[in-house]
Amino acid sequence: MAETWEDKVAPVRRQREASLAKVQPPLGKLPETLPLNSRNLPKELLTDREIELTEKCTVKQLLARLRSRSVSVEEVTRAFLRRAAVAQAAVNCLTEVLWDQAIERAKYLDSLPEPKGELFGLPISTKEHHGMKGSDITSNASYVAWIGSKHRSIQLYDILWDAGCVFFARTAQPQTIMHLETNSNIYGRTLNPYNRDLTPGGSSGGESALIGMRGSIMGVGGDIGGSIRCPAAHCGIYGFKPTCKRIPSGGQRTHMIGKEAILSTLGPMAADRDALELFVQTVMAAEPWLLDPSLTFKPWVPHKFDRPLRVAVQWWDGVVQPHPPMTRALKEVSAACRAAGMEIVDWDCEQLDHKKAWDIIASLYWPDAGDEVLGRLKSVGEPVLLLTKFIIEEQPSVKKLSMHELWERTAEREAYRDFYARAWTNTAAQDGKEVDVILCPPSFGAATPHDQSKYWGYTAQWNLLDYPGVVFPVTTVDPVKDPRDESYVPKNEQDKFCFEMYSPERYKNAPVSLQIVGRRNHDEKVLAALREIEAALGRS
Amino acid sequence: MAETWEDKVAPVRRQREASLAKVQPPLGKLPETLPLNSRNLPKELLTDREIELTEKCTVKQLLARLRSRSVSVEEVTRAFLRRAAVAQAAVNCLTEVLWDQAIERAKYLDSLPEPKGELFGLPISTKEHHGMKGSDITSNASYVAWIGSKHRSIQLYDILWDAGCVFFARTAQPQTIMHLETNSNIYGRTLNPYNRDLTPGGSSGGESALIGMRGSIMGVGGDIGGSIRCPAAHCGIYGFKPTCKRIPSGGQRTHMIGKEAILSTLGPMAADRDALELFVQTVMAAEPWLLDPSLTFKPWVPHKFDRPLRVAVQWWDGVVQPHPPMTRALKEVSAACRAAGMEIVDWDCEQLDHKKAWDIIASLYWPDAGDEVLGRLKSVGEPVLLLTKFIIEEQPSVKKLSMHELWERTAEREAYRDFYARAWTNTAAQDGKEVDVILCPPSFGAATPHDQSKYWGYTAQWNLLDYPGVVFPVTTVDPVKDPRDESYVPKNEQDKFCFEMYSPERYKNAPVSLQIVGRRNHDEKVLAALREIEAALGRS
Repeated sequence: MAETWEDKVAPVRRQREASLAKVQPPLGKLPETLPLNSRNLPKELLTDREIELTEKCTVKQLLARLRSRSVSVEEVTRAFLRRAAVAQAAVNCLTEVLWDQAIERAKYLDSLPEPKGELFGLPISTKEHHGMKGSDITSNASYVAWIGSKHRSIQLYDILWDAGCVFFARTAQPQTIMHLETNSNIYGRTLNPYNRDLTPGGSSGGESALIGMRGSIMGVGGDIGGSIRCPAAHCGIYGFKPTCKRIPSGGQRTHMIGKEAILSTLGPMAADRDALELFVQTVMAAEPWLLDPSLTFKPWVPHKFDRPLRVAVQWWDGVVQPHPPMTRALKEVSAACRAAGMEIVDWDCEQLDHKKAWDIIASLYWPDAGDEVLGRLKSVGEPVLLLTKFIIEEQPSVKKLSMHELWERTAEREAYRDFYARAWTNTAAQDGKEVDVILCPPSFGAATPHDQSKYWGYTAQWNLLDYPGVVFPVTTVDPVKDPRDESYVPKNEQDKFCFEMYSPERYKNAPVSLQIVGRRNHDEKVLAALREIEAALGRS
Repeated sequence: MAETWEDKVAPVRRQREASLAKVQPPLGKLPETLPLNSRNLPKELLTDREIELTEKCTVKQLLARLRSRSVSVEEVTRAFLRRAAVAQAAVNCLTEVLWDQAIERAKYLDSLPEPKGELFGLPISTKEHHGMKGSDITSNASYVAWIGSKHRSIQLYDILWDAGCVFFARTAQPQTIMHLETNSNIYGRTLNPYNRDLTPGGSSGGESALIGMRGSIMGVGGDIGGSIRCPAAHCGIYGFKPTCKRIPSGGQRTHMIGKEAILSTLGPMAADRDALELFVQTVMAAEPWLLDPSLTFKPWVPHKFDRPLRVAVQWWDGVVQPHPPMTRALKEVSAACRAAGMEIVDWDCEQLDHKKAWDIIASLYWPDAGDEVLGRLKSVGEPVLLLTKFIIEEQPSVKKLSMHELWERTAEREAYRDFYARAWTNTAAQDGKEVDVILCPPSFGAATPHDQSKYWGYTAQWNLLDYPGVVFPVTTVDPVKDPRDESYVPKNEQDKFCFEMYSPERYKNAPVSLQIVGRRNHDEKVLAALREIEAALGRS
């Protein structure tokens, strides 16, 4: 009998189970019915010491302890391995744990006479389709057709490795790596740590769920339409999508290699803010452009503001009205910024045609109308998931482009980028003080119920423009503060779809995050603005 | 009777004649038979004062005189206008002179209470297909089908204008802007100032011929396969092709808009070296990325070497052996560099497969097999010139690509760029001292006889890699020093074609130039290396 796609998947799942079975000591018994909110599970299953190591310090604090050798790399690694196993049991975020490899690496680092590297001893989680260190590492990128394919380590991971990190867990991505959720035929559906009925976001939702559980405190995601920022926002963690070509992003196991009209970038996802800049500084210090000449040759120089920030607030994108808790977050943060002496202005998207931006980027995601990707699914009879259909087949602008049509679309993209740059530059017309950053939603609301993530506008806009964006947690949904606006009349079909999705009870206690966006290649400024804005919120 | 392509061309030529007829006082009578070498013609037709103003100082010296107002902008402008008219009579390099516009601009600048701008009063020549200031400016890019099309000013020229320059002459480009010569059905053939039987190069050969005649001392060219460097080399002037996306290059009247697998860049061509860096500094100081977000956000910071240069000499590219005077130039310059304390190593191209680079770039020049361009010629019955046929129809790798084939070719390009970067990085493997620049030919020889420019490898290699390259004059062909090597056995068809083209008498006194190439985005280093290497040659 011919092998079915399920036959191919079975050994991958067994391999995952086998990797988890190595975790020592084994986890205690989980509750029969898992709670809606998984965030307290680790306390029930881990030791106080493990809890202390995995959630009581920031990345920099942990690194300081590791460097001073007041804690061993092995002890820290074991704690995160066990906590990752809890996260997997709770929200299904992993493709495997690297028990043997991680402990071997930890022992090696402990054996060094002196700690070495900016990330000495830090456990880092990685997305499955990024090939990594290890002779037997395979990457399938959630394609059944690619199950079992060996894949080389990517340049970024070589750099992190050389900086002394420990790779210990690999995380799931959705089918085609092009959902804002995380669900695949191989690994199943990943859930939100705060609420099992909601998505952790995607495509780096394995990472966000794992870090949301503090089964990791630093990981790596990729973003071409929101895949770092959306999951970071939905899980209440930090995520940074740099401008493309700052961070080495080549070498992943992925599709449509050679397509360049819209590029993805790798970037950090972390439990705390300062870890983001540590990550990019560590990577840039390795001069990655020496081996990947497509990268921008530009060392990272932290930005310092010489005047109070001018922050533009995007209250909505002109297409879909954000849900009430998102609007409340914008109000709270902009009020705090104003109180801290910043200037707050409006970012008026109605003149900026974000709808058009979506039409352009959707078309350029799939200039072959998805033929390559859909062909790969079909080749092994892998079922096409609902959100795959949505992003390929249900977008009016997606069609098979001729060469000349590709050029036309690319020229439209360039014209739109020029248009937007002019609008930004014009903010300095009155007094020479340009808007520094845009404060905006990373999504129309908190994490959506499963299979409902059908509006990408709040993140993909900045991919089309190739603007850097960072996401940070602000608040959680509060039914008292965030009632549904019953008087609201949706302005279009997408607005109606998102509006009807909202009810405060459904989202209760879900994280609400905001996004800070800067001009292309102003990555340093975006992270500096995050520091300033968090300071205005009273965060150190 | 239907209008023929000749009917469309006639008014363009009349317009050119009319613009030249405005030149005052009119030029004296030219010799009945023009000499092979046109370089002495200006002395016969211009006043001593005009000669003095147009050829006795560098760009910076002229700017200093203009800024001090020891000479008026109008007087300088008139001198260059008249000298440009001589150049046109001699080598057919112009599409028009801008008599009225330039003198009006000059008078305006003279009327200012204070000189203003880095380029105050400097006459600058521009390539016809770059739209420019002036309400009635048309650009046809040498396509008969586009005759009479109005075209807007490009961002680069807005910047130069704001810096105080005077646009005074527009220069010719070849059909399709894709010959390494300059010949079109609209403007005819441009000749080399040193020898009418040779080409001035192309596609910016109107510029190189004009500057070679000192009918201009600074102009603007564009380069996607050698179009700045080849003509600069052939006419004994300086030309700089920056890394793409440093200099704003958008908005030109050109074909295949939206194609991005291989990009062109604008860059300076000038009578002296220091003008090149002045040009790029002036442009970068205007922060062009504010309006063109595709540009690299990276201010220009002149490079300073902190150790003697390590220069790699490319004696040949592994495909075509350079002609004897080119090899002599490499020997002379590398000897001078060594004498000045630099380290000279070999750049071994046989391991680097430059032939493959050509196959990739040729394919990516014309992913539609030239359909768009050939269709435009056909639409008005414009004859396809020999070098157009050569570059589109006679390249084995040029074919109509499907979307997936385009991705494959683009991925090959990326792999080749990575491979080359690794080779360069490996030069530091022994002692940590990486090769700073490659010293290499800009062509297999001096300027070729007409219609013989069929080997692009010495320039297009660096376009595929997107490496910056600068060309500088070294020597001239000397039949005594540069005999033909009768014992040489060509290694392939292209090598044979180029080898057979050489005889010392044919090229006697033609300029021989060299090229300095740096890593991608190391533009500042390339210009700094040029300074060092010219210092080694005893040039100030």
